[in-house]
Amino acid sequence: MNPVEIIVKKRDGKKLTKEEISFLIKSYVDGSLADYQMSAFAMAVYFNGLTDEETSILTFEMINSGETIDLSQISGLKIDKHSTGGVGDKTSMILAPLVASFGIPVPMMSGRGLGHTGGTLDKLESIPGFRVDLEVNEFKKILSEVGFAMMGQTKDICPADKKLYSLRDVTGTVASIPLICASIMGKKIAEGIDGLVLDVKTGSGAFIPEKSETIKLAQGLVRIGELAGKKTIALLTDMSQPLGNYVGNWLEIKECIEILQDGKGAKDLVDLTLALSGAMLLLGKKTDSISEGIELCRKKLESGEPFELFKKSVVAQGGDLSVIEKPDSYPKSKFEFDFVAEKDGFISEFNNYEIGMTAVNLGAGRMKVTDKIEPKAGMIFQKRVGSKVKKGEGIAKVFTELENSIEPAKLRLANSVVISEKQSQKSDLIQNLIDSEGIHEWNDFCK
Amino acid sequence: MNPVEIIVKKRDGKKLTKEEISFLIKSYVDGSLADYQMSAFAMAVYFNGLTDEETSILTFEMINSGETIDLSQISGLKIDKHSTGGVGDKTSMILAPLVASFGIPVPMMSGRGLGHTGGTLDKLESIPGFRVDLEVNEFKKILSEVGFAMMGQTKDICPADKKLYSLRDVTGTVASIPLICASIMGKKIAEGIDGLVLDVKTGSGAFIPEKSETIKLAQGLVRIGELAGKKTIALLTDMSQPLGNYVGNWLEIKECIEILQDGKGAKDLVDLTLALSGAMLLLGKKTDSISEGIELCRKKLESGEPFELFKKSVVAQGGDLSVIEKPDSYPKSKFEFDFVAEKDGFISEFNNYEIGMTAVNLGAGRMKVTDKIEPKAGMIFQKRVGSKVKKGEGIAKVFTELENSIEPAKLRLANSVVISEKQSQKSDLIQNLIDSEGIHEWNDFCK
Repeated sequence: MNPVEIIVKKRDGKKLTKEEISFLIKSYVDGSLADYQMSAFAMAVYFNGLTDEETSILTFEMINSGETIDLSQISGLKIDKHSTGGVGDKTSMILAPLVASFGIPVPMMSGRGLGHTGGTLDKLESIPGFRVDLEVNEFKKILSEVGFAMMGQTKDICPADKKLYSLRDVTGTVASIPLICASIMGKKIAEGIDGLVLDVKTGSGAFIPEKSETIKLAQGLVRIGELAGKKTIALLTDMSQPLGNYVGNWLEIKECIEILQDGKGAKDLVDLTLALSGAMLLLGKKTDSISEGIELCRKKLESGEPFELFKKSVVAQGGDLSVIEKPDSYPKSKFEFDFVAEKDGFISEFNNYEIGMTAVNLGAGRMKVTDKIEPKAGMIFQKRVGSKVKKGEGIAKVFTELENSIEPAKLRLANSVVISEKQSQKSDLIQNLIDSEGIHEWNDFCK
Repeated sequence: MNPVEIIVKKRDGKKLTKEEISFLIKSYVDGSLADYQMSAFAMAVYFNGLTDEETSILTFEMINSGETIDLSQISGLKIDKHSTGGVGDKTSMILAPLVASFGIPVPMMSGRGLGHTGGTLDKLESIPGFRVDLEVNEFKKILSEVGFAMMGQTKDICPADKKLYSLRDVTGTVASIPLICASIMGKKIAEGIDGLVLDVKTGSGAFIPEKSETIKLAQGLVRIGELAGKKTIALLTDMSQPLGNYVGNWLEIKECIEILQDGKGAKDLVDLTLALSGAMLLLGKKTDSISEGIELCRKKLESGEPFELFKKSVVAQGGDLSVIEKPDSYPKSKFEFDFVAEKDGFISEFNNYEIGMTAVNLGAGRMKVTDKIEPKAGMIFQKRVGSKVKKGEGIAKVFTELENSIEPAKLRLANSVVISEKQSQKSDLIQNLIDSEGIHEWNDFCK
């Protein structure tokens, strides 16, 4: 086959065959298709898209380029959750033990911070000793013994995706919905799941901020999941302000610990965690409806049982249990300052991308791959969209080890908030549920 | 500057600045911009285009990436012609000495056969000893002494274009009108011309067969030429059958020799050569109108004077004059066969791409860069679109050295002609003239 003819075919808006997509991916992985051909192809896909069938074929080529995890020896329906990424998005650490405590195995393969967003692996590693670089057998053993396990993507899973993702990152071809779908779903399917709940973010802190595009992404993900025979539900959720009050790796673990103890904490974080968990219970066939699942999860979270499971997993993955049991024993940040309101009024808007980038610059994320993360860096928000503030009143407490990041952070944060005279309506936390049957209003769907 | 941001800007349909285009080309030439980034950029340009200003900036970046030829010491307006390529397209060898015989210096930097089309350099090299790899100083000396000179592109002229063209060739990004414009016009402007006549081909043997697209290309070339301060005229001409009767390197030289002697020969070839030459006379300020230029050129061609100049150039460039003076002394082909009509009727259509590819397979062109060209291989057409034919009557005589190319050629040629019961109307040879003032019907424009 001639790769140029395949590129031209997609450039001209024609549908590719299974053989053509397979040839492209296989020859890309074996090195006979050059990066410059794959990047031209990715750009053609950016413009002309892929049909569901093409995306599905691409997803399976990603999976077949490497190894898959066989979880058939672990009984029960294996259900995972995937978020498209955000600021303060820490639901995984709560919902994994919560759902697992219902006997649903949760095999969670997570990522690191990317751009302005945080990553589950970085957060977990803020627990001294916590290991995320598990071998597959170790992962399976922990999953079987604890009920959930959290690890990073191994080099043998979807190597084609790894190679293609790195290329897309430097060629302006990340924001292609079918390519995002194949990348996410390839990894999730390779992980051995039976069902998947997706938390698709929309708003200023999301990778794809526009709601219409976010809906397309959610629909694409659900269709690819269903085509692969995996029950898939997507929630479209607000990322126009940080989720929960804490942003930063250890700070987010701390917020999770607080909620895991008795189910009490930031309302948005608790509500979203319960919604995602409820959907996971439905997919795991532990309940007949999401609303029932949510109520079961709420009671379970208040019982403190999931916290015991979380502690069990910390021990199993090599983490220091003492900081989990006594979070205040964690070292303190060298510098601390207040992000204050510049005038009286109501917070009408955050630029959540800017808040995420501020966290990165404070040391909570990476500017380049080799940067070291500072686990203590971050922010604790005292005010939210809709909050009344007085001039000089604190909006957030900010923590860093980097003295020279303080002034730029103050400036950036001041520009990331809009204070208005009138209280404006804030975005709904959970806006839509998208499943194989279509798109539903969350409020209608979930009484 | 961040190359990814520039790619994304063009991907999103925004206009690039001079600094951004300059950065892309300079860093591509020095190797700091990777091929995979440039190919993604080229694909984004394929979809979103470039404004005239962007194309103009790109053209000058191509030029500034290497050396330019300074012809200021040669008096008179230097006028060149460029064809977008075709089958049997041999006007250069006639018009260069013809226009030069009016005292207009014609500095001609030509190309080799590409795909299904022939190349002037390959044709000239069929003259034993003829050298096209001239040094710039030698080129200038011949131009000054003979009045015209013909050479290949040196490695120092537009190196950015060379690198980018090779990349486009393997990434499905050749057919982008602004990229074609920058590539052609960059080389022509670097050659030191004052004015340019373009022969933009349309129809089945053209690189861009659709007329609407050909018009866009011609308009783009003219605008870029004018923005560079070079008077530019484009003729839109038919390439739905071979130009003239002879196809193949030496055969085409032979047809030129025949016409150069007394101006008599295949009507389409003579008419197009005179039209292009007439336009060159107008740009060279030797006449006030193209139609007057055509009449001056017709008389000059009939006088045989340009043939003397052609012979002078053959000698100056090291060619064997004896084959020019006695073309029948040229070695004969080993194999010769007839391409015959399969039924009675009128030839209503040729697939000129297929005819060009047949010539390549007979040995007249290259399948890959390293292939050697056989100068004697080719075809002499006895019939044209509109000709009446009887079953078994010859449409063309075919010549080759490759015995195993005969049967495939017969099959391919049989499929490249449509014979109908009724005589259909053939395409006009010269369809439009496009200049800075707009697009004109050739028949209205040139009485």
